[in-house]
Amino acid sequence: MEGYKVLKPLGDRVVLEVQKEEEQTVGGIVLASNAQEKPQTGKIVVVGDGKVLDNGEKLAPSVKTGDTVLFDKYAGTEVKYEEKAYLVVHEKDIVAIVD
Amino acid sequence: MEGYKVLKPLGDRVVLEVQKEEEQTVGGIVLASNAQEKPQTGKIVVVGDGKVLDNGEKLAPSVKTGDTVLFDKYAGTEVKYEEKAYLVVHEKDIVAIVD
Amino acid sequence: MEGYKVLKPLGDRVVLEVQKEEEQTVGGIVLASNAQEKPQTGKIVVVGDGKVLDNGEKLAPSVKTGDTVLFDKYAGTEVKYEEKAYLVVHEKDIVAIVD
Amino acid sequence: MEGYKVLKPLGDRVVLEVQKEEEQTVGGIVLASNAQEKPQTGKIVVVGDGKVLDNGEKLAPSVKTGDTVLFDKYAGTEVKYEEKAYLVVHEKDIVAIVD
Amino acid sequence: MEGYKVLKPLGDRVVLEVQKEEEQTVGGIVLASNAQEKPQTGKIVVVGDGKVLDNGEKLAPSVKTGDTVLFDKYAGTEVKYEEKAYLVVHEKDIVAIVD
Amino acid sequence: MEGYKVLKPLGDRVVLEVQKEEEQTVGGIVLASNAQEKPQTGKIVVVGDGKVLDNGEKLAPSVKTGDTVLFDKYAGTEVKYEEKAYLVVHEKDIVAIVD
Amino acid sequence: MEGYKVLKPLGDRVVLEVQKEEEQTVGGIVLASNAQEKPQTGKIVVVGDGKVLDNGEKLAPSVKTGDTVLFDKYAGTEVKYEEKAYLVVHEKDIVAIVD
Repeated sequence: MEGYKVLKPLGDRVVLEVQKEEEQTVGGIVLASNAQEKPQTGKIVVVGDGKVLDNGEKLAPSVKTGDTVLFDKYAGTEVKYEEKAYLVVHEKDIVAIVD
Repeated sequence: MEGYKVLKPLGDRVVLEVQKEEEQTVGGIVLASNAQEKPQTGKIVVVGDGKVLDNGEKLAPSVKTGDTVLFDKYAGTEVKYEEKAYLVVHEKDIVAIVD
Repeated sequence: MEGYKVLKPLGDRVVLEVQKEEEQTVGGIVLASNAQEKPQTGKIVVVGDGKVLDNGEKLAPSVKTGDTVLFDKYAGTEVKYEEKAYLVVHEKDIVAIVD
Repeated sequence: MEGYKVLKPLGDRVVLEVQKEEEQTVGGIVLASNAQEKPQTGKIVVVGDGKVLDNGEKLAPSVKTGDTVLFDKYAGTEVKYEEKAYLVVHEKDIVAIVD
Repeated sequence: MEGYKVLKPLGDRVVLEVQKEEEQTVGGIVLASNAQEKPQTGKIVVVGDGKVLDNGEKLAPSVKTGDTVLFDKYAGTEVKYEEKAYLVVHEKDIVAIVD
Repeated sequence: MEGYKVLKPLGDRVVLEVQKEEEQTVGGIVLASNAQEKPQTGKIVVVGDGKVLDNGEKLAPSVKTGDTVLFDKYAGTEVKYEEKAYLVVHEKDIVAIVD
Repeated sequence: MEGYKVLKPLGDRVVLEVQKEEEQTVGGIVLASNAQEKPQTGKIVVVGDGKVLDNGEKLAPSVKTGDTVLFDKYAGTEVKYEEKAYLVVHEKDIVAIVD
């Protein structure tokens, strides 16, 4: 996805480059395959402007482009680009950053 | 839809010109056909005045006329004009702007 | 409904004169008959004082008497007057104004 | 109900004198008998002190004793007095005032 | 229940002395036996300190010890004392005060 | 539970020492055995710091260590210590204090 | 999990080292095996920055690295690292701290 900026997520959404299942060992963490709620890892390629609070202000996102993150597998809207899967998810569906 | 202004969406709604399925490659992005939650692209033709916040102020919309956007296929209210489908959707149902 | 004021809607409600199905072409817009969520057009005959916000203030309605509007068909409370159907709907159920 | 004050509704509730079905023509309005959500008319006999807002203040009711109103038939708590039905309903279930 | 103070309800709860069905004529009001939502009358014996608002302040209860009230029959937590039934209900489940 | 402090409940939670059914007569109150929503009595052994309000402040709990309380039987998380059952419940599930 | 910092939980989430069932006696507390809502104990290895309040401020977490806590067994997202199970849970799913 040369030029990740072709897709600008709205609000607190981010665009993720999903990691293939055989790659699901990041920073030494192996994700349990039999977990009730199966998490997945991905790399953030674009970040939205942040969630709009009740008073109209924007809350800066707590993740940034390049972060590898753990997210809930069933979250988000899938798009494809040159045979790679991308996912647009809400920041609240990101469980943790994997350093 | 000569003169898009015949339809003025209320609140945080926008009117979209829905793109036909064979056109669903915008800016290099091909939408996955087997995705759980099927997104669709469309071009914004009219934008409402924005969502009213709890304090009574209006929040300026983050999309504008002419933007091509990715939205959730099952969202919105459909209207037709000269054989073209238009959709009135809430801004929250717009996933991302496709530049 | 000579003298529309016989019915004063409360809060953010408005009274609509519903348009018959064969008339459902307003300003060049033809409403899709096979849409999942079937919209309908109507003409506003009376408007309430507006929604009360959390701080107790009233939010002025964004529609006015005489507006032709697109609304969700299943919304509202139906009343009849001299063989014509009227509908009392909440402003949030009005999708767009048709100019 | 000589002396309507025997029943003092709490909060945003009001006490209504329900009108018999054969009387359901008020101010020229005939209520549709086949409507999905059947409304009914009634005359307000007592009004509560009003809804308590989040900041603790009371919001003055927008209806008053003597008003004839249109309300949702399935709303409220029924009481009887000398063979007449009374209903205690929340102000939000009152659709419109019939002048 | 000599000494009603043995039970101190929390928040916006009150303790009611429930009236037997044959006594359900209070102040001339007879409660409809075939009403969808069967109300019941009771006498308030203890009142809590009131509901805590979002800002942390307490909202004074709008009922007091000795009030005869109309409440929703299915509300509350039942306790017994010397063969009499008492009920602990939230103030929001009290429909009206019967003077 | 010598040294009740081994378990520190979070937020508006409290730790209760549950009373056996045959002991369910506290301060003269006998709990109805056929009540729809069966309450139970318990003695508070530890109290949390209180609920966090929307503005970030903590709301002081309205119960204290040593209070005998009436609570909803199906609420809470059960733990055992030396053959006695303890329960961690939210303050909102405590119906009343039994003096 | 040498270097617990490989996983940084977002918001009010924490990473827990789950304790095996035979170890479920912490500080003298034995967790009931037949409880409706089965709690489990774990040791906190990483804590997030805290929940974001409605006004945009962060609420400091009430638990810290090293705390042994009681949490709801069905909460959270499971990850594995060198044959040990870790769990990422929201602070609201932590019932109590076991000292």
